[in-house]
This record gives sequence, structure tokens and C-alpha cells, in this order.
Amino acid sequence: MPEYMDVHRGMDGITQEQLLEAHNANLAIQDDELLNCKHAWADPASGMVFCLSDAPNPEAVKKIRERAGHPVEEVYPVPVQA
Amino acid sequence: MPEYMDVHRGMDGITQEQLLEAHNANLAIQDDELLNCKHAWADPASGMVFCLSDAPNPEAVKKIRERAGHPVEEVYPVPVQA
Repeated sequence: MPEYMDVHRGMDGITQEQLLEAHNANLAIQDDELLNCKHAWADPASGMVFCLSDAPNPEAVKKIRERAGHPVEEVYPVPVQA
Repeated sequence: MPEYMDVHRGMDGITQEQLLEAHNANLAIQDDELLNCKHAWADPASGMVFCLSDAPNPEAVKKIRERAGHPVEEVYPVPVQA
């Protein structure tokens, strides 16, 4: 399954509790699109959030993020890794 | 040790070999700044590269990236994770 990194902006001040809540909202529905949300990293100061997932395609990432309340435009396939 | 995600742009067409070479160039000198480069993800289509490291501060990330030949401006602390 390909991996994708999606990037959210404007989440200034995001707390551990809020990120966990968002992550859990994704986990609750991710099976509908064969998504596997693996990890999320957030910077409350800049408002940047990075999410790493296995997914069949970028549309699956976008569908689940939108349904979970955090729509995203930036979804990058990351086939090259080190 | 805090974790940081640094973001590189314009690496269009980056190959597995090129990313590994860049990663190894960082590994070779990272101890000088107490940096620990943990993983890198790249999208050859968009030219985006994401790197996750342990580091004492963002300057350590910038110093090592510059010496390794890939200077970076975007270095985000990621204390909030899920």
C-alpha cells in the first residue's frame, strides 16, 4: 500500500488532546477507505500538522480527513524514503 | 531530545539513490550537532521532502543540512504527536 504525507496549516495552538481527538476521529472511520493513519506530528507555534498514512490513493486520504472534520488539499505520495 | 520536521521543496525527480546519498551525508556529520536523523520521506512528483530528527534545537538541524549540501529554512518543532 502506498504511503502519503498530508500537510495541514493554520492549526495554531493545537494541543495534545486536540490532536489525539482528531487522530481518533480518523481512526474511527478510516477502514471505509482502506486508510491506515500511522502517525501525526504537530507544531502548535506555526500551526503545521503532518500526517503519515498508508492509503490506496490520495483521494482516500482526502475523503477521510474531510469526514473527520479536517479537510486537506496537500496530500503527497512519499514512495522514496531513507 | 525534541523532535523536528524539516521540509525541503524543489527536489523534483529525486530518486531513492539521491535521497539515500543525502541522508548518508547527514548521518556522517550529525554527531557534531547532537542531531539524530531518523527518517526522510520524498515525493519526486512535487519535489517535497520531509525529514524527522531528534535535535537539541532548530539551529542544529539547519547547520547539519547546510553542511550536507541541502540548506533548509523550514524547521518545525513537533512536540505534539499522535
